Amino acid sequence: MKRLLVMVAAALVLSACNKDCEPQAGATGAEPAKTFKWKLVTSWPKNFPGLGTAPERFAEQVEQLSGGRLTIKVYGAGELVPALQVFDAVSQGTAEMGHSGAYYWKGKASAAQFFTSVPFGLTAQEMNGWIQYGGGQALWEEVYAPFNLLPLPGGNTGVQMGGWFNKEINSVDDLKGLKMRIPGLGGEVLARAGGTPVTLPGGEIFTSLQTGTIDATEWVGPYNDLAFGLYKVAEHYYYPGWHEPGSMMEFTINKDAFAELPADLQAIVRITAKAINEDMLAEYTTRNQAALIELKEKHGVDVREFPADVLNKLQTLSDEVVAEVAGADPLSQKVYDSYKAYRDQVKAYHAVSEQAYINARD
Amino acid sequence: MKRLLVMVAAALVLSACNKDCEPQAGATGAEPAKTFKWKLVTSWPKNFPGLGTAPERFAEQVEQLSGGRLTIKVYGAGELVPALQVFDAVSQGTAEMGHSGAYYWKGKASAAQFFTSVPFGLTAQEMNGWIQYGGGQALWEEVYAPFNLLPLPGGNTGVQMGGWFNKEINSVDDLKGLKMRIPGLGGEVLARAGGTPVTLPGGEIFTSLQTGTIDATEWVGPYNDLAFGLYKVAEHYYYPGWHEPGSMMEFTINKDAFAELPADLQAIVRITAKAINEDMLAEYTTRNQAALIELKEKHGVDVREFPADVLNKLQTLSDEVVAEVAGADPLSQKVYDSYKAYRDQVKAYHAVSEQAYINARD
Repeated sequence: MKRLLVMVAAALVLSACNKDCEPQAGATGAEPAKTFKWKLVTSWPKNFPGLGTAPERFAEQVEQLSGGRLTIKVYGAGELVPALQVFDAVSQGTAEMGHSGAYYWKGKASAAQFFTSVPFGLTAQEMNGWIQYGGGQALWEEVYAPFNLLPLPGGNTGVQMGGWFNKEINSVDDLKGLKMRIPGLGGEVLARAGGTPVTLPGGEIFTSLQTGTIDATEWVGPYNDLAFGLYKVAEHYYYPGWHEPGSMMEFTINKDAFAELPADLQAIVRITAKAINEDMLAEYTTRNQAALIELKEKHGVDVREFPADVLNKLQTLSDEVVAEVAGADPLSQKVYDSYKAYRDQVKAYHAVSEQAYINARD
Repeated sequence: MKRLLVMVAAALVLSACNKDCEPQAGATGAEPAKTFKWKLVTSWPKNFPGLGTAPERFAEQVEQLSGGRLTIKVYGAGELVPALQVFDAVSQGTAEMGHSGAYYWKGKASAAQFFTSVPFGLTAQEMNGWIQYGGGQALWEEVYAPFNLLPLPGGNTGVQMGGWFNKEINSVDDLKGLKMRIPGLGGEVLARAGGTPVTLPGGEIFTSLQTGTIDATEWVGPYNDLAFGLYKVAEHYYYPGWHEPGSMMEFTINKDAFAELPADLQAIVRITAKAINEDMLAEYTTRNQAALIELKEKHGVDVREFPADVLNKLQTLSDEVVAEVAGADPLSQKVYDSYKAYRDQVKAYHAVSEQAYINARD
């Protein structure tokens, strides 16, 4: 009799649910399992290798982990909002999430420049250490709080390359008058060395280099640079990339949207973002080496190192520029102090671990 | 009328459910939401810093992400099974999961030795690249398939230190007769250099060094070495750790238990493991630098570098030893070929990226 009652009751509930209620979920079964449909806007062309595929993977995985309760549609740059309006769009709730780079938002908050990559700053591994165990995450949240945004690490390209040059760089003097596409703090450093930094979107780099509008450009690293065909229009490929030694991408989340998620979905978003943060670095580490071989062996690219005195000069200027960013406001100073203390300590540690080992293995 | 029927029906279902069924979950609401209680056995003392706290964090996060549908109880070494029976226990289903290091299982499968750390092998970042994008994961699954185990990366300590010595190492000759606690392939390399490798559990290292039973020991790095107080009984702290340049821990999962999980819980286990894999490296990177400062400044530890000719000799011997492991069986050869090809390529890439940058920053 009890079994029959249950069957009847279940049938009634199911039938009613088709119109009136959501399916059940959660450990208790007491709350209705709401489903959520989010939009995620990005600063990259749809499915751009590495940068653009990471948020796609994030969305797929969140859907799997949530059993379909949180589905996220990813938009390429310009599909819903332009590349550089990601921050505003998520802040205002036009989209629930964004995937971009913090240093694009220096006009909103100067301190944001510390959360992507800083000239002669932290590598990817070191950045993860600072963010996750060195106080970086709390500072980042403080910087983004006025904008109603929760930031999370969203992948890292690793050390970028120094860039493509149509002039040889044999001394500090060769930087003078150099017209180079290099954005952000790296560009400011180049300006102080006597060069002319130019800001250009990725899509215009090839032609500008080909026509001589610019003498040089940085982009990302072998994997992305090969895809852009830059070897066809530049003579020398310089290393190392001193200006972005480990560019961390960011996920931003509208705080109101996040607060509406039940605790398990919040945890799914946080942990999946962390897995993606690792995944992108593993992907770049692997794809870059294969691309470097192709550039050298198939396309005969001339890969060469910046002279030591050039790197020394750039480092001195970088330290000046970064310290000035700190002076913009008290919060920038607070972030800088934390970042710099971590950098100095981790340099000393890596001198006896990563750096010493990788040199010994050579 | 419909509303009343639903209420009555719901009450009946809830009442019946107290005895007869599990709460509902999942996107469809059609399947009963089974709950799972797993055991996770480890090779570490309960809550041992880094190594032991990582599986605890994993269990907490899986419980959050699953809304309590998958709860995992973590056991320290010896609580349920001894430290070095983790592999067997998970293989046989005594526990559903394990957290340990693959190189402990060389007696079961020689190729397992490539999946923790190899002398003069891959760093943490490189290891993640090989496992996740370079074919390593598929090979690892092949090695563990006969044991009914699915392996996943479970954290990384980063480059370990060279160890604590009561004899100065000024030349290759100083390795002759050296009694050193150093397990695995590193120990085999030391033997070929004329030393005497000793295997000791962590808990016996301090006394053995103090009494002169051994002349030297490696352990992990500043964070864990400080906790063991090794600076009290050894004169010199050498770097770099050539024998374990990025020790990856492992989660093992009993395949039958994994197959019983619904797809969303399987995805939760996989993705949470990946997040933990990143998290441990971030933790070690941060804690190690603070511990190194404490060792140097508070305890006056003499930190010194192995001479170049000693490192060169150890590298030559390491290459021999690792190549011989490959000769054990066809699967070991297959793994070695993949590992070595990745190492050679990533070395060439890091020569123009990580290595070149970190040296330029110095």
